[in-house]
Amino acid sequence: MADQEIYRASTYAPVNIAVIKYWGKRDTKLNLPTNSSLSVTLSQDDLRTHTTASCSPAFPADTLTLNGSPQDISGARTQACLRELRHLRQSVEEQDPNTPKLSTMKLNITSGNNFPTAAGLASSAAGFAALVRAIADLYHLPATPTELSRIARQGSGSACRSLFGGYVAWQQGTHPDGSDSLAYEVAPASHWPDMRAVILVASAEKKDVSSTAGMQQTVATSALFQHRAENVVPQRIKAMEAAVHGRDFAAFAQLTTRDSNNFHACCADTDPPIFYMNDTSRAAVRMCEAINSSAGEVVCAYTFDAGPNAVVYYLAEHEDVVAGTFKALLGGLSGWEGKRGGAVKTAESVPEGMEVAGELLRRGVSSVILTGVGDGPRKTDQHLC
Amino acid sequence: MADQEIYRASTYAPVNIAVIKYWGKRDTKLNLPTNSSLSVTLSQDDLRTHTTASCSPAFPADTLTLNGSPQDISGARTQACLRELRHLRQSVEEQDPNTPKLSTMKLNITSGNNFPTAAGLASSAAGFAALVRAIADLYHLPATPTELSRIARQGSGSACRSLFGGYVAWQQGTHPDGSDSLAYEVAPASHWPDMRAVILVASAEKKDVSSTAGMQQTVATSALFQHRAENVVPQRIKAMEAAVHGRDFAAFAQLTTRDSNNFHACCADTDPPIFYMNDTSRAAVRMCEAINSSAGEVVCAYTFDAGPNAVVYYLAEHEDVVAGTFKALLGGLSGWEGKRGGAVKTAESVPEGMEVAGELLRRGVSSVILTGVGDGPRKTDQHLC
Repeated sequence: MADQEIYRASTYAPVNIAVIKYWGKRDTKLNLPTNSSLSVTLSQDDLRTHTTASCSPAFPADTLTLNGSPQDISGARTQACLRELRHLRQSVEEQDPNTPKLSTMKLNITSGNNFPTAAGLASSAAGFAALVRAIADLYHLPATPTELSRIARQGSGSACRSLFGGYVAWQQGTHPDGSDSLAYEVAPASHWPDMRAVILVASAEKKDVSSTAGMQQTVATSALFQHRAENVVPQRIKAMEAAVHGRDFAAFAQLTTRDSNNFHACCADTDPPIFYMNDTSRAAVRMCEAINSSAGEVVCAYTFDAGPNAVVYYLAEHEDVVAGTFKALLGGLSGWEGKRGGAVKTAESVPEGMEVAGELLRRGVSSVILTGVGDGPRKTDQHLC
Repeated sequence: MADQEIYRASTYAPVNIAVIKYWGKRDTKLNLPTNSSLSVTLSQDDLRTHTTASCSPAFPADTLTLNGSPQDISGARTQACLRELRHLRQSVEEQDPNTPKLSTMKLNITSGNNFPTAAGLASSAAGFAALVRAIADLYHLPATPTELSRIARQGSGSACRSLFGGYVAWQQGTHPDGSDSLAYEVAPASHWPDMRAVILVASAEKKDVSSTAGMQQTVATSALFQHRAENVVPQRIKAMEAAVHGRDFAAFAQLTTRDSNNFHACCADTDPPIFYMNDTSRAAVRMCEAINSSAGEVVCAYTFDAGPNAVVYYLAEHEDVVAGTFKALLGGLSGWEGKRGGAVKTAESVPEGMEVAGELLRRGVSSVILTGVGDGPRKTDQHLC
């Protein structure tokens, strides 16, 4: 029976790691940020969410399954995404009465990550990007990624940046309804394809404070945050776009490390203070500084999200001096196997005077992930349900 | 022979720990700060420098001995103090031709601390305060402590605050010559005598960056520091003076912890970042928060200088709930012996959920020092040479 038909669409969506950080909402309901942000989309060969969206008149209710376990779909953020997508589908159906009325059917969404959720990597960004992209494909929506970014943003702020590959900005916007708080592509991965990253996964500790709670504590109590949002970030966004357009790694690196430190400074200035970086994170900072100074040029840049993991960016040409140094320290950990890991030549020595930092990294890092800049969501016929 | 006579004067000088932090110089030669600061002078029964200044026509050269080892006295900062003090002595000698010409004699200065220098406690403040106070006594200078603070400041900025007891402010001043960058007494120890402190000495690690170098890196590179110096600190100084005058511990505590966090935030925002607090320090922060929340009121306030040691302020009436909790955790360490330590009643339990923080403190704290607010430099007849 036609009315028992099941419609399906599946997609992969990438993780993104900000180099100019998103921290602070001016509207918590709509996920409108206090400042713009800019990120690098990481390769889906290494980190991705795979989501299948299906709908059918036979489905009794909307459902969401993540990594095999049913999720609560009634949350305001998920509901906002579904409502907006069904609304867009309705106008498609109104324009062509012959299109099936998918907007009236219940949705079953099944999702899975190919990376350890314990790693504390921002999976909500990839998750909501995949959910929105999969349903948009299911509904055959004519919407552009930027239009969809407005919807994904309401699920998880940084998700709006995972609808694009390469180098992506999220403009804060000024409209109270958030209609201009959108993501756009600064440059595709093909513009600067040799950007690589090694992620040092610090032993999973419980996160100090959730990002959502933490950023609003910062907005409410930090004496420095408003200065960051209003004066520091706007000029850095401009400078970072220029660095990406000009493929200027030295400028990219300085902006990336300074903005990570500026973000964590505002966390430390929160009352009570929020600490995401630990002694392992600080050892990674010192090791990156030592790698740069022994190389005689800036070959790597660290950044830390709301957790202790270090994301170290570098160019392919410097893989051996950057990733190779970490392989010399952490070669026994999982993450070095496979084609990408095998291609990294282990450095013959660790920079001088880095014994303490090296020992802290050996003690505190549980695994590594080798990746690099990648493209945006990929449609797939591999259905999860 | 009279010309072989040796003139002597000896003094004790206290350590002070800032609650509104000094960080950043607008003039490195004169030690002129970018912002005012405010500190609590700690009791000399617990922490003090003992200095004897002597002069004689028989001395061949100026000398300085610290804890038994000869020090280089040719440094510009020490020389500036000696020059200024000799200049003041000259005017005394000019007014009364019968006074011995001590200003023409060489000085031998001998100094010792009663606390472990390994503890990383700001000993330069007590050291230069004692040097200036001892020579001023040797010279019978009519100068007030505030006048002497201008001289001590040139030896070590925070030394100017150790010329007073109790609660002391250092006003940044505006004159290029530093003539108005002086310390003054906000309130004597007797005004609020029940202020106590327990210092958690974190296992001596090498300091990340010296204060002198670090603060100028912050001034030069932090995107947040200028906002701190110009906008954040001035209002906190006013609020802290009011808290001290009103003996308002809750206000004192909030200003103290927020300013410590704000200072360390600016250190983290420095390029390259400066990290003085470590995982042990952060565990002390969490423990103080837990002590306050289980007490149902603000009974303690933490502050960190340019190192990992926690200084925890509390009022005598809360000694058992604050110091007693740390004694329950760290009772085996040195620092609890003696009259003061014995008077602390060990808490029956550590606040719930503090197992991880407690373990980090047990691993990272090497000793404790119990002390409290105290008076200013004390003249003594105990001569070290």
